[in-house]
Amino acid sequence: MASASAALKSRVRRPSYLNKVMSAEDTLPFFKNGQYLGWSGFTGVGYPKMIPIALADHVEKNNLQGKMRFNLFVGASSGAETEDRWAALDMIDRRYPHQVGRNIKKGINEGRIRFADKHLSMFPQDLVYGFYTKDKPNGNNLDIVIVEATAVLEDGSIVPGASVGASPELIQMADKVIIEVNTKIPSFEGLHDIVGCSLPPNRKPYLIMDVEDRIGRTSIPVDPEKVVAVVESDRPDCTGPNAPQDESSESIAQHLIEFLEHEVKMGRLPDNLLPLQSGIGNIANAVIGGLAKSNFNNVSVYTEVLQDTFLDFFDSDKLRFASSTSIRFSPDGFDRFYENWEQYKGRLLLRSQQVSNSPEIIRRLGCIAMNTPVEFDIYGHANSTCVAGSGMLNGLGGSADFLRNAKLSIMHTPSTRPTKKDAHGISCIVPFVSHCDQTEHDLDVVVTEQGLADLRGLCPRDRAQLIIDKCVHPEYKALIQDYFDFATKKCLANGMAHEPQILDKVFRMHSNLLENGTMRVDSLIN
Amino acid sequence: MASASAALKSRVRRPSYLNKVMSAEDTLPFFKNGQYLGWSGFTGVGYPKMIPIALADHVEKNNLQGKMRFNLFVGASSGAETEDRWAALDMIDRRYPHQVGRNIKKGINEGRIRFADKHLSMFPQDLVYGFYTKDKPNGNNLDIVIVEATAVLEDGSIVPGASVGASPELIQMADKVIIEVNTKIPSFEGLHDIVGCSLPPNRKPYLIMDVEDRIGRTSIPVDPEKVVAVVESDRPDCTGPNAPQDESSESIAQHLIEFLEHEVKMGRLPDNLLPLQSGIGNIANAVIGGLAKSNFNNVSVYTEVLQDTFLDFFDSDKLRFASSTSIRFSPDGFDRFYENWEQYKGRLLLRSQQVSNSPEIIRRLGCIAMNTPVEFDIYGHANSTCVAGSGMLNGLGGSADFLRNAKLSIMHTPSTRPTKKDAHGISCIVPFVSHCDQTEHDLDVVVTEQGLADLRGLCPRDRAQLIIDKCVHPEYKALIQDYFDFATKKCLANGMAHEPQILDKVFRMHSNLLENGTMRVDSLIN
Repeated sequence: MASASAALKSRVRRPSYLNKVMSAEDTLPFFKNGQYLGWSGFTGVGYPKMIPIALADHVEKNNLQGKMRFNLFVGASSGAETEDRWAALDMIDRRYPHQVGRNIKKGINEGRIRFADKHLSMFPQDLVYGFYTKDKPNGNNLDIVIVEATAVLEDGSIVPGASVGASPELIQMADKVIIEVNTKIPSFEGLHDIVGCSLPPNRKPYLIMDVEDRIGRTSIPVDPEKVVAVVESDRPDCTGPNAPQDESSESIAQHLIEFLEHEVKMGRLPDNLLPLQSGIGNIANAVIGGLAKSNFNNVSVYTEVLQDTFLDFFDSDKLRFASSTSIRFSPDGFDRFYENWEQYKGRLLLRSQQVSNSPEIIRRLGCIAMNTPVEFDIYGHANSTCVAGSGMLNGLGGSADFLRNAKLSIMHTPSTRPTKKDAHGISCIVPFVSHCDQTEHDLDVVVTEQGLADLRGLCPRDRAQLIIDKCVHPEYKALIQDYFDFATKKCLANGMAHEPQILDKVFRMHSNLLENGTMRVDSLIN
Repeated sequence: MASASAALKSRVRRPSYLNKVMSAEDTLPFFKNGQYLGWSGFTGVGYPKMIPIALADHVEKNNLQGKMRFNLFVGASSGAETEDRWAALDMIDRRYPHQVGRNIKKGINEGRIRFADKHLSMFPQDLVYGFYTKDKPNGNNLDIVIVEATAVLEDGSIVPGASVGASPELIQMADKVIIEVNTKIPSFEGLHDIVGCSLPPNRKPYLIMDVEDRIGRTSIPVDPEKVVAVVESDRPDCTGPNAPQDESSESIAQHLIEFLEHEVKMGRLPDNLLPLQSGIGNIANAVIGGLAKSNFNNVSVYTEVLQDTFLDFFDSDKLRFASSTSIRFSPDGFDRFYENWEQYKGRLLLRSQQVSNSPEIIRRLGCIAMNTPVEFDIYGHANSTCVAGSGMLNGLGGSADFLRNAKLSIMHTPSTRPTKKDAHGISCIVPFVSHCDQTEHDLDVVVTEQGLADLRGLCPRDRAQLIIDKCVHPEYKALIQDYFDFATKKCLANGMAHEPQILDKVFRMHSNLLENGTMRVDSLIN
């Protein structure tokens, strides 16, 4: 046992926990090869740092690579210095349901890490259902769950930091809990709204009718006897700068804002829109940045992650309230947030991902969902996860939670991406997605820097022509048009032309990319 | 105006409507080429008959084929003598969101009918949002909605028959309403639970916590001034016999019941299971038939359609309560239902499809969803709609509403289907689905007569091996195993082996089927 620092004592209001204070190294004996672990964290914020790093140091120092491997469950991604380093040290056997990092991706795609992605709303629920631990030899619980806290209340409950994610359910399913109390980050007390996960047939409605409705408590309950260690942490969330806007993302944002203005004009959206969900990356930044400069007022947000541009959106006074499960600011963004805490704290709250991404609430609120795919196809299916059908990027995330249930489901992407060999080597619009995560039944609008295609109410053939006309890059237009014309003609002749496809030709662009580094081929039909 | 029969008077309790009684032929002047029409009906019950048949007769007699074409919106399928005859007479331009019938399918696949399928929970909502009528020249409403009623209440509201479907929203969006009062079917008064569709930001929760909870009224409200005609109907719902069980479907049912027993034993399901959703067809019949003979008691059902075997399930006293949006019995089944009305009426209710298929409620109740696909693939994606990626069968229906949101999402199919040339010509398990409606993120269990694969918590490669081992027919096992091994080896070499696929080979079985009438090929990898 170590003695608690003054900083730690100021954060931990449960006296008995102060008897459990130890260093990260002291916790190493708890960990054994093959265990099932849970970590707090979501989109690279709020994850435990001290113990994962101590464990990695231990493995590295003692050449235990491949001999201390864990089943690792985190709400979404954590930080590079933890899970990605673990992957490099071959410390991860299974990993669910989302990840970010060069080494972890490599481990997944080289077959060393057994990864599966899952709807982020569903992962915590399935965890409580026992779906991930059903083959575990010693009971359905997770062996150890490590949670980062910014404060601990009198009842021993945990106040998280910049994310809630799956922590309530991970803790609910834990045999042992270790708390990393981060004393370098301000206490986030009061910013969270936490509900637990009951099991059917006893589940209750989520009575959220407005983005700011609170239905829970401000901390995560935990059985104090489960808490086996408290470790002080002084490491910040290791976020990088936000992706910069570029010409393409600003064109996309402009098309989208014009579309939203048109919908308001036609009476299909209220003047202040409906709660926005926006993904991560430069297009999302451009869209939110564009809205901060737009004529929309009193806007609300119901999403899973907030980026730096939301600070501008708040500052513009056009954003009324934001609900999320994480705040993933850049280091500068966090500084700005903490310095103006009083100004922001009443205008946002953080929920668990089961609630932030709940189909029930998203559909009720009528969200406007905007996400970036790997590619979409001419009929309106989208690939959010796998390159060339096989190579995992990061995982599904909450894209399908929102896109299936939103009132307006929008996917935005540049029409092409460069490869080493070709400035327009990859067309983000293809005849047939090489992996399908969002179906044609889910998307309303697709948009590239070329233009916007409103797919609502259109049959597949009409959707295809509109997407080719509005969204495809000029370099690919003739190629894809020829394919569509040929497929239509051939399928009409067969009496199978609801959604014309020629299956032995649909992936020629992808195959050429794998072989020759570009999707540009002379023809798809010869 | 015609005079109302005694039978009609006994059903219509709103006196002013009796002034609007006319024959089906009298309503013909209301209908004009290009109009937007709505019909009641779902799974071939509760649809209007008199006027659609009179219109078809009119078109046929006057050689108006192709000159009276309509945009037709029905909750799901109606009857062959109406929409399928309309399709044969080229009376349908657009059609949403589901259909059944040889001629309508032909019209869709030959490019004459612009059809799109949509989640059945979402269609009525998107209709109210104006998504299907946004390009209509004269306002967002449907021109005429024809609804079959079995009674009309004092306030003019409509008591439907054996289905509710999308009728509340269709009526909400109607300029004119015509009611067909069916006096040959008993009044279903009291069997329905009806709520309207409010718009965000004013939507409220559906406060259903148990399958039998009522949250609405027993009839569909309508503005009486919109009602322009009342027509008496004496035509029954034109259902056929239910699909018979066979050896394969009984094997599947047995695998499933063993699985459910195991889940109860492991504590992952309560003794009386959780509310069941089951699709239509012989496997669904076998599963429900098997449950009626099983040891499960006090079972509940939350589904979109009830078939004849549910009568046995009720009679076995093992089924406590069933909620649905339609009752699609055979003619014999309806006789049995009407004869024992008092015994059944307190044990089931019919809701609108927006409620029966609501993600909110399905997830809260923790339903067990069971549906039949066209095919599924080795990684757990399923095709529910299109043959060889292009040819529409019936549409998505409610499959994805349930499979995305259920606690246990199950797809069942025979492992092969015969073609003209080959008794096992089609393998229902393929390397890559030719159309994706349910993603790998949605399915928990797949089952064929060969066996059951529990995919929960498995990474894609492990899922593939399990599906090959448990579900694939012996005639295809080596072929698909060789493909999987080859794809894994090649993708491992590329560092893209999260979900190994060789895109230029994935559809060889499908292409061979189109060319040679069988999916059996010598190899997928040479």
